[in-house]
Amino acid sequence: MAYDVDNAARSLEQADPRDIIREAVAGFDRIALSFSGAEDVVLVDMVADLGGDVQIFCLDTGRLHPETYRFLDKVRDHYGMDIELMFPDAEAVQQLVREKGLFSFYRDGHQECCAVRKIEPLRRKLATVDAWITGQRRDQSPTRAEVPVVQNDRAFSAPGHPLVKFNPLANWSSEQVWAYIAEYQVPYNELHERGFKSIGCEPCTRPVAPHEHERAGRWWWEAATQKECGLHITNIREADIKPVRESA
Amino acid sequence: MAYDVDNAARSLEQADPRDIIREAVAGFDRIALSFSGAEDVVLVDMVADLGGDVQIFCLDTGRLHPETYRFLDKVRDHYGMDIELMFPDAEAVQQLVREKGLFSFYRDGHQECCAVRKIEPLRRKLATVDAWITGQRRDQSPTRAEVPVVQNDRAFSAPGHPLVKFNPLANWSSEQVWAYIAEYQVPYNELHERGFKSIGCEPCTRPVAPHEHERAGRWWWEAATQKECGLHITNIREADIKPVRESA
Amino acid sequence: MAYDVDNAARSLEQADPRDIIREAVAGFDRIALSFSGAEDVVLVDMVADLGGDVQIFCLDTGRLHPETYRFLDKVRDHYGMDIELMFPDAEAVQQLVREKGLFSFYRDGHQECCAVRKIEPLRRKLATVDAWITGQRRDQSPTRAEVPVVQNDRAFSAPGHPLVKFNPLANWSSEQVWAYIAEYQVPYNELHERGFKSIGCEPCTRPVAPHEHERAGRWWWEAATQKECGLHITNIREADIKPVRESA
Amino acid sequence: MAYDVDNAARSLEQADPRDIIREAVAGFDRIALSFSGAEDVVLVDMVADLGGDVQIFCLDTGRLHPETYRFLDKVRDHYGMDIELMFPDAEAVQQLVREKGLFSFYRDGHQECCAVRKIEPLRRKLATVDAWITGQRRDQSPTRAEVPVVQNDRAFSAPGHPLVKFNPLANWSSEQVWAYIAEYQVPYNELHERGFKSIGCEPCTRPVAPHEHERAGRWWWEAATQKECGLHITNIREADIKPVRESA
Repeated sequence: MAYDVDNAARSLEQADPRDIIREAVAGFDRIALSFSGAEDVVLVDMVADLGGDVQIFCLDTGRLHPETYRFLDKVRDHYGMDIELMFPDAEAVQQLVREKGLFSFYRDGHQECCAVRKIEPLRRKLATVDAWITGQRRDQSPTRAEVPVVQNDRAFSAPGHPLVKFNPLANWSSEQVWAYIAEYQVPYNELHERGFKSIGCEPCTRPVAPHEHERAGRWWWEAATQKECGLHITNIREADIKPVRESA
Repeated sequence: MAYDVDNAARSLEQADPRDIIREAVAGFDRIALSFSGAEDVVLVDMVADLGGDVQIFCLDTGRLHPETYRFLDKVRDHYGMDIELMFPDAEAVQQLVREKGLFSFYRDGHQECCAVRKIEPLRRKLATVDAWITGQRRDQSPTRAEVPVVQNDRAFSAPGHPLVKFNPLANWSSEQVWAYIAEYQVPYNELHERGFKSIGCEPCTRPVAPHEHERAGRWWWEAATQKECGLHITNIREADIKPVRESA
Repeated sequence: MAYDVDNAARSLEQADPRDIIREAVAGFDRIALSFSGAEDVVLVDMVADLGGDVQIFCLDTGRLHPETYRFLDKVRDHYGMDIELMFPDAEAVQQLVREKGLFSFYRDGHQECCAVRKIEPLRRKLATVDAWITGQRRDQSPTRAEVPVVQNDRAFSAPGHPLVKFNPLANWSSEQVWAYIAEYQVPYNELHERGFKSIGCEPCTRPVAPHEHERAGRWWWEAATQKECGLHITNIREADIKPVRESA
Repeated sequence: MAYDVDNAARSLEQADPRDIIREAVAGFDRIALSFSGAEDVVLVDMVADLGGDVQIFCLDTGRLHPETYRFLDKVRDHYGMDIELMFPDAEAVQQLVREKGLFSFYRDGHQECCAVRKIEPLRRKLATVDAWITGQRRDQSPTRAEVPVVQNDRAFSAPGHPLVKFNPLANWSSEQVWAYIAEYQVPYNELHERGFKSIGCEPCTRPVAPHEHERAGRWWWEAATQKECGLHITNIREADIKPVRESA
């Protein structure tokens, strides 16, 4: 029987992130947490605390900061949990680089590179689960201002394979996330002590000045309303998203 | 006739920083702005814009960040204004270091080193003016929560030499300061893009994590209620401050 | 007719690197230069100058320094030449990381990780050429003290597919390489100005002190006599190397 | 009776640095070692080992690298020896900066700033001793190619106050210094692991590329034949140096 997303969205609308995770885990056997290596480590902490059977994965684009790779290993050790790394397809990366070099995103926009290094590996992973958990928050950017706590993931569902997406931090502010990190002494990426708020790929992330919005540190050469890499593409053009077919 | 501090404090209580500066300049011929090389650069910008005859000085402790020295020169060039550097007395520095090495503050507290590298040079400068302007804000720390926009400076006044202290940013929040920097494209210290909010001497300043309070980055090995270097010592023990005599 | 390696080795033994490259290009239509992103950029410069039809490739392990990625793009732009990046197989990387995390080399030695991230992609590339050119020098390490200027590559040859390996810099010292860089104003990796002599993967390379041997900066937790990643494994155990079969 | 410099220079011409130091200490009660915070730490190590009564001082210009200040304290702790810091005169620094800003050396040459921040404090110190020991080596620069192991210091002598200068490392190469550091596990400035060979003031020192001459990292905007700060000015224009009078 299909999971009742509308009902869950209503009942969890004001719920604590831990309750949303608990509900998610109760509802799905095959469920995974997408961990970016940034402050969404609070979700790893919550999952570890609940003890549920949630797979944790991270998209290793081959262009993360050395500090992020070290942090991933630190989290793995700290919690004693496996973190599965999804790696891009060799031929796809080689072809992109052969044609356009290693920094085409500065000229052509980041979507093409993200498609190869993030979206395809993500799709591979999501094909194996029925629900996933993300660290999206409404205060992160204009594109995320309407993010619900639970939703049907129309971008990564496929015919015969519905996918539900949980966003337990949707209602939390950046301040709340960092208060949690401080209170529970959650390990965090050392880049956060060098001016980085948001953290993505190395060439596409920069530190921000005090009180500069975190999203200003991502794809800063592009317009604020286009700043999604494709993981959460539904945030941008909800209306015309078509179900995406698994490519193989 | 003495400047009526109480009256000014009342009438300027809710005033815009630029109006407070204008009033300060109107009231005193011999007036100086103490610039730290951090986000109080907004005061330099305001003073430059008003065109008043305000001396700008900076306490060069001999231990500032290389980035701060570069920034001071950049501000000097950008505004075409002199910035006077006050340098500590050679014999006093040599004696402190001979007895205790270069990092005694980590063991004995920062007051002793600040007395030599900041307070004595500050006193030398303040002996030549009748009023000074600082970047103190109430939101900076517990010790500054009551900072008025104008006050008699009882720490640096001397018999026969009253001194008035203006704090034009007292009511502004950190957010407002940074909004001003962004709007008026004020140059800022590059350390602010590496996680530094507050900036002082190199060994006594560290970057902070997102949403960590700026004062956590200063003298972090000491209690929050003692975090004044002596420039603004009246903030700490108002009650028992005695007029300080010029030592020669 | 097979290339006469013995004869070439004799006649080129004292030859200038440029002459060795010229000879290599004359002898093989399908020939590639393996560029590491370090000071072997002199070979790229020489190849560009000769104008021969040499493919240039680089092993992108997914763990190179951000500075190296930027340098690769800079070289590509500077010379207007394609640099093919060979990327590791996704499933192989994922399996290694799933089992052992991202830093297994510090515990188990670097051979296992190099096999996945360097050797397999190299083998894929070498299967498409009949000769390759490397930047190996005799002064680089004990394992390279006997490197000839030309040799049969018994590690990467396969039945029916002989492979010849040219080492044009075998006789050059580090000093000579850097004198060439200075004289011809060859662009170089910015890491070389931060204490790095040898440059490999980020977690497996460190800067060295003045006059410390460059190889001390690679896999420093391992014995000097084992410091080959597999590209040049014949240097280590010539005697018992067996022809390696193309895996498919 | 005057120290026979000519005789000492002859007899010590080929002597080991430790023997030169031993001779220096035997000849003078009031003798000081000038330590720069760089690889001349080997002299500190030798002096500590000999146990002689040598004062150690360092010219703290107020513009050293934070890393150098940390290193000075580390050396002090490691050897349990006092390191006297000589600090520039406040008024002289303030006047230079008031007139020319903090980076006048890039425009006008480094001599003026060195005069204030290095030479005057050095003169103050040398007025209290009869001999000093330096880390000068012949291989450091063209200006030092003729440095003797012992010499009359005509730049810092004064009427009635002859001064002898010992250069125990004159014959040693950079390689020998670093071999000593490695063999005796002498602590060294962490900047040496970031590409710095020579180390002076922060704005006037830069790291060098592999095999680039160490002196290329000092005052790089000036001609190689003028690269003395005044400590060793006799190296430059021996012929026309006049005895310099103590200024008071």
